[in-house]
Amino acid sequence: MTEYEDLIRLKQPPSIAAWSSVVGKKESEGPMAPYFDCTEQDSHFGQATWEQAESELQRRTLRLLLQKARCPETALSCLFAGDLINQCTSSTFALRHLDVPYLGIFSACATFAEGLMLAAVMQSGMNLPRCAVLTSSHFSSAERQFRFPLTYGGQRTPNAQRTCTAAGAALLTPAAAPPYLRGMCIGRIRDMGLTDASNMGAAMAPAAADTVARYLSATRTRPADYDAIVTGDLGTVGSRLLNRLMEQNGYELRSVHRDCGVMMFDNAAQDTHAGGSGCGCSASIICGYYLPKLQSGEMQNILYAATGALLSPLRCQQGDSIPGICHLVHLSHSGGKEQI
Amino acid sequence: MTEYEDLIRLKQPPSIAAWSSVVGKKESEGPMAPYFDCTEQDSHFGQATWEQAESELQRRTLRLLLQKARCPETALSCLFAGDLINQCTSSTFALRHLDVPYLGIFSACATFAEGLMLAAVMQSGMNLPRCAVLTSSHFSSAERQFRFPLTYGGQRTPNAQRTCTAAGAALLTPAAAPPYLRGMCIGRIRDMGLTDASNMGAAMAPAAADTVARYLSATRTRPADYDAIVTGDLGTVGSRLLNRLMEQNGYELRSVHRDCGVMMFDNAAQDTHAGGSGCGCSASIICGYYLPKLQSGEMQNILYAATGALLSPLRCQQGDSIPGICHLVHLSHSGGKEQI
Repeated sequence: MTEYEDLIRLKQPPSIAAWSSVVGKKESEGPMAPYFDCTEQDSHFGQATWEQAESELQRRTLRLLLQKARCPETALSCLFAGDLINQCTSSTFALRHLDVPYLGIFSACATFAEGLMLAAVMQSGMNLPRCAVLTSSHFSSAERQFRFPLTYGGQRTPNAQRTCTAAGAALLTPAAAPPYLRGMCIGRIRDMGLTDASNMGAAMAPAAADTVARYLSATRTRPADYDAIVTGDLGTVGSRLLNRLMEQNGYELRSVHRDCGVMMFDNAAQDTHAGGSGCGCSASIICGYYLPKLQSGEMQNILYAATGALLSPLRCQQGDSIPGICHLVHLSHSGGKEQI
Repeated sequence: MTEYEDLIRLKQPPSIAAWSSVVGKKESEGPMAPYFDCTEQDSHFGQATWEQAESELQRRTLRLLLQKARCPETALSCLFAGDLINQCTSSTFALRHLDVPYLGIFSACATFAEGLMLAAVMQSGMNLPRCAVLTSSHFSSAERQFRFPLTYGGQRTPNAQRTCTAAGAALLTPAAAPPYLRGMCIGRIRDMGLTDASNMGAAMAPAAADTVARYLSATRTRPADYDAIVTGDLGTVGSRLLNRLMEQNGYELRSVHRDCGVMMFDNAAQDTHAGGSGCGCSASIICGYYLPKLQSGEMQNILYAATGALLSPLRCQQGDSIPGICHLVHLSHSGGKEQI
């Protein structure tokens, strides 16, 4: 038994007052396409390099968020942002000419959930009016940083996931309007010694099982109490492992489990192997698909358990393993104090 | 005029209940040596690679913090950690076998201040008992990532700063014991278009001036109201620029300004050019030198304005500039509600 709290419950749950999602070409051809605010067919987003393209993707997503919220950039109390690229430059170069108080975060593909948690704590705990989160990923900037030069044309293994070109953003306010962020569970790093950089799902599944089981246990809830328990992004391989690990923990997850990496693509038709991944994958699906359903009441409660593979090409070359992490937030149609 | 709040004041200021600092060989030969908890003469910290050495440095610093606080690792409510190395792996590999709720952060050399801010918000806003922050840097892991292979033996320019091998950690609790973290100002990215990766001080000075001036203005205080306004790490070049920029803003900073990059080394004797830098530089000096003075009451109030150059070698190669950021925290002997 650990002594710290596995669960942080927000006494005054912030309202997610606005959200936005922008995705690239491949994502616009997948089953989730109708749900995104905006799709872009030019992988370069009008820029000269992939890294600049990803920064432009972030800028557009933030601009859209602020438009939808009717909030000028200078009215943001703070913005948590992050991405996969070294030195988090997709974020910093997206924001460098904006007058926005910026806090850089990194949890690999779990960064959007980390940002939601911290924006909620900042909004609710410090009573700030407008706290935002923004994350992105880009297939081409990530692929050449983490694996091979794109022009090398390397074969991808069946277990491999495809980094999504996608971004999501959300604005948290003290308003009394659904959806709300009700609670959270901060992840602990889990490392089972996996060293295959093409099998991120397996590296992340133990972290997902740890966090989801801790949260369910701390809240004394069962998977069936939620409309969905949404991981992002375990892909098909990691999802199978998660379900098996949860079974060992005494939880039957299958009936409510969804995974953003699995949802993003039609893997057979789009040749995307084990599914999608990246900071923008679950960010765009949470913002595009789940938040509207929680707003309307079509869904009442979901757990969003974002998973990140804390992969370093250099540490892999040095023979080291791939640690995983999973941060969880409870998103709800209701801001009240019911059982869940 | 911007509309958001430049100042976040903590109604219940957390107490910094414990802190620790560990530095390397070069730092142990400088003027700050007597103040650190621990100095290590082996640059490899007993490990096979520089990256593993930095993770070991972080582990030792955290272990020391927990020993001093008489707090088992599993009793931490959360730990904010970060470093300069790609994918933040100095932190994640330091923590991967610990049962600690971990939140990854990145603000380059300003990461320790970001961590202090977020740990304070988490402690105070969510009423968590034990929130910690941990950051590190290592000369050898940073130098080869950001500039040249060490064995290349490249000449360093007079403006260049030396990444410190150092780490600092602090534990924030609701206790009623000095020192306290009273308030904060989240930085905005400033980018004046500088592209010289060997002149980080100049890239960061505008961000420091922006944050410090915003905080002084929001609190209606003057530099002389503080025992010290401590930047980290502008070095000699950046410090001169900051003082000039503050003068243009109507503030005379010189009499109370100190810079951790300048303090760390005897630049003439140690051949460290414009001074020290790195996530561990100001972290170790705040923990080693300033927190004890704020605890004893020898100092009453300091502003710790940590600066980060959000440098990316890849973006530099693409012709892009170096954005800077500066996060500020107000550290105080008193937790009360006095003027400052």
